[in-house]
Amino acid sequence: MADGPRRVGWRAQVIAVGSELLSGDSVDTNSAWISMRLAEMGVDVLRHTSVGDDVDRIADAVAEACARVDAVVVTGGLGPTQDDLTRLAVARVAGVGLERRQDLARHVSEYFARRGRLMPERNLVQADLPAGARPLQPAGTAAGFVLDVGAAVVYCLPGVPSEMRAMVERDLLPDLARRAGVGTTVSRVVRTAGMAESAVADACAAVVERLRPAGNPTVGFLAAGGETRVRLTARAESRPAALALLDPVLAELVELLGPGVVGVDDEGVEHAVARQLRRLGWSLAVAESVTGGGVGARLVTVAGASDWFRGGLICYVDEAKVSLGGVDPQVLAAHGPVSEATAAALAAGARQRLGADVGLAGVGVAGPTGQGGREVGTVALAAVLPGARPRTRELGLPGRERSEVQAFAASAALDFLRRRLAKTAG
Amino acid sequence: MADGPRRVGWRAQVIAVGSELLSGDSVDTNSAWISMRLAEMGVDVLRHTSVGDDVDRIADAVAEACARVDAVVVTGGLGPTQDDLTRLAVARVAGVGLERRQDLARHVSEYFARRGRLMPERNLVQADLPAGARPLQPAGTAAGFVLDVGAAVVYCLPGVPSEMRAMVERDLLPDLARRAGVGTTVSRVVRTAGMAESAVADACAAVVERLRPAGNPTVGFLAAGGETRVRLTARAESRPAALALLDPVLAELVELLGPGVVGVDDEGVEHAVARQLRRLGWSLAVAESVTGGGVGARLVTVAGASDWFRGGLICYVDEAKVSLGGVDPQVLAAHGPVSEATAAALAAGARQRLGADVGLAGVGVAGPTGQGGREVGTVALAAVLPGARPRTRELGLPGRERSEVQAFAASAALDFLRRRLAKTAG
Repeated sequence: MADGPRRVGWRAQVIAVGSELLSGDSVDTNSAWISMRLAEMGVDVLRHTSVGDDVDRIADAVAEACARVDAVVVTGGLGPTQDDLTRLAVARVAGVGLERRQDLARHVSEYFARRGRLMPERNLVQADLPAGARPLQPAGTAAGFVLDVGAAVVYCLPGVPSEMRAMVERDLLPDLARRAGVGTTVSRVVRTAGMAESAVADACAAVVERLRPAGNPTVGFLAAGGETRVRLTARAESRPAALALLDPVLAELVELLGPGVVGVDDEGVEHAVARQLRRLGWSLAVAESVTGGGVGARLVTVAGASDWFRGGLICYVDEAKVSLGGVDPQVLAAHGPVSEATAAALAAGARQRLGADVGLAGVGVAGPTGQGGREVGTVALAAVLPGARPRTRELGLPGRERSEVQAFAASAALDFLRRRLAKTAG
Repeated sequence: MADGPRRVGWRAQVIAVGSELLSGDSVDTNSAWISMRLAEMGVDVLRHTSVGDDVDRIADAVAEACARVDAVVVTGGLGPTQDDLTRLAVARVAGVGLERRQDLARHVSEYFARRGRLMPERNLVQADLPAGARPLQPAGTAAGFVLDVGAAVVYCLPGVPSEMRAMVERDLLPDLARRAGVGTTVSRVVRTAGMAESAVADACAAVVERLRPAGNPTVGFLAAGGETRVRLTARAESRPAALALLDPVLAELVELLGPGVVGVDDEGVEHAVARQLRRLGWSLAVAESVTGGGVGARLVTVAGASDWFRGGLICYVDEAKVSLGGVDPQVLAAHGPVSEATAAALAAGARQRLGADVGLAGVGVAGPTGQGGREVGTVALAAVLPGARPRTRELGLPGRERSEVQAFAASAALDFLRRRLAKTAG
């Protein structure tokens, strides 16, 4: 086996069945969700596979997976139509036939009767399971099942996400935990902004090297949505034991990454801004041009935002920058709309118009073409804090599509404010 | 081969690399998008596979795929960090070493220099490609590459969706079409909002029946993101020949679906609003509370928005609804902040403050708890058009998380305006 010898921890593979996945009409979200739940109980997911509604291809994928891992989770292909072939494929891999289960057949009939609908005869195929399989009680009409195939255990679940999730929580996780006698795996994430992925990796290099021999916790890097994330994962007997391994390393990385750290785990930069504003007892107003409202929209995703966010001005055209944003027409004429001077005037305008303590503004060029001699991706930011002179910054952002430049600009504006607030003593 | 003998049409497999996919932290959307583009050119995608950042596991997956299909598309693992291992794994499968490409090294250095940032030395590993590979020009710093491995061709692309998509359109599709000598499959999509999927299907039933015998174009229905989409797909020798089959049917469906049609292909409701405003020669201003700027942010994703979008008011706290939005305090007290009366006053206020022809406003309850007796998901919308009385509407939106309610509310506000504008003679 190229994956190396079996280790103590259990290993799994997730197989999603459905031609709609391979045509690109649907995105497989089931496999990610299942993997998260398996990781939390300490089962290592080695691979995801998606195959179409073809009995040979499903059987191939299941057979390969049974040779590679301890537990195989299959979603989809359990419905009543001609293209629901998972039961047949798994029976073939196990070398057994299909048997009609009278209790399941009754369940399907009653499901239709309760809804006052005629049951098409075809629906009874949902009661046909591979011989030796243990049925898993259906949420809709599709029963799941669990079957031992050689040294592996195969769980077959419906593809409908809500039915699948109910079956995982109720049947799969307890059954697998009992079989595997497993502990748990816990992850924590340090989120950074304004640092290149390679700079984050360099800052963490000594810790990564030190942890490598023991391999617990492990460290991974991920660039996503203008952030670089550092993910620590520990394996232990229990969640508290895993956290005891993780938390000192987390604290060390937060220290090493310094002002680049936005937050940990689920907290984005808008949460860091909210925390700083609450600490300082300050309210915020925004003035937006290039982002058209995207900075405000990010801020109001934080629950309780009305405690510290008053609102803002969307000054998209130059006329609105003057009439609504209070920019001096001479400043606009001298420096242009995409300039630190205009951003500073807008931040002051938003602060004044909305009676807020702090003003934040962003102007820029989203494309598709440059504007007034400024390249696509040029963004100027300004923040006005109580008792301090306006601070400004100009950036060249990556991103080739308008919506991408706009999303990066909103992140950059929030991170700019976060860094200003973090330097302010409460 | 369990997949049967090779057929005339080319067959492909898509491999997504990244431990974040197997931990459930990220959902792989790249594979679905790539599969859709391959299907459009008549290449059959047999399987998707996701593997973690492990050189052995990546190499296994690539080697298996090369034995199964004609073309292998790998995404991810091309960055500069220690866990970016795709280059190494593919070189191993091909039995070659890595070579530093001086042109790519220069590109990476210049990328950092242009942004005035120091380049960490580690970034140069992005210039190391398997010997014999042809580099694909990077959009960011990660170069892709194409390499023949036995009888298969392997394309390696960055995992960042925008960079990946650009490389697929520019390099992969033309290269693969040339190699495979294929005709093409082209799809066009009619997007509807405010109609149930079954109502859309009913409206299209006669066309679907008429097309069924020939099977070209085919018609499919898909509910996604609050829209129902009708997808037409035609197969032909060339793109113009496919479009000649599609376009008359597309026009027929747009006619049949009437006011439910938001747009075609990539055009969301914000494009429909833009088109209507251009037709009428009107400018728009928004006033937002629950969405915090999200409606404006959607509008400015349309290129050239400054021709018709002036800006807006983010009136998040009640005080801002009065002082900035111009809502009469007695209206606010009598009807509450989440009411059609307050929305109507805000729409009028935005229109007046920004000197726009049209005002659009949305207020609501995003959660996590209800507010002033109104349930989470309650949204009131208002639009004021020239020479017409304000029109308002109250909705109960689905969605359980704040950000989900806010996204639905922004879509609902835009669709509300679209329908008002569509009824207006130019």
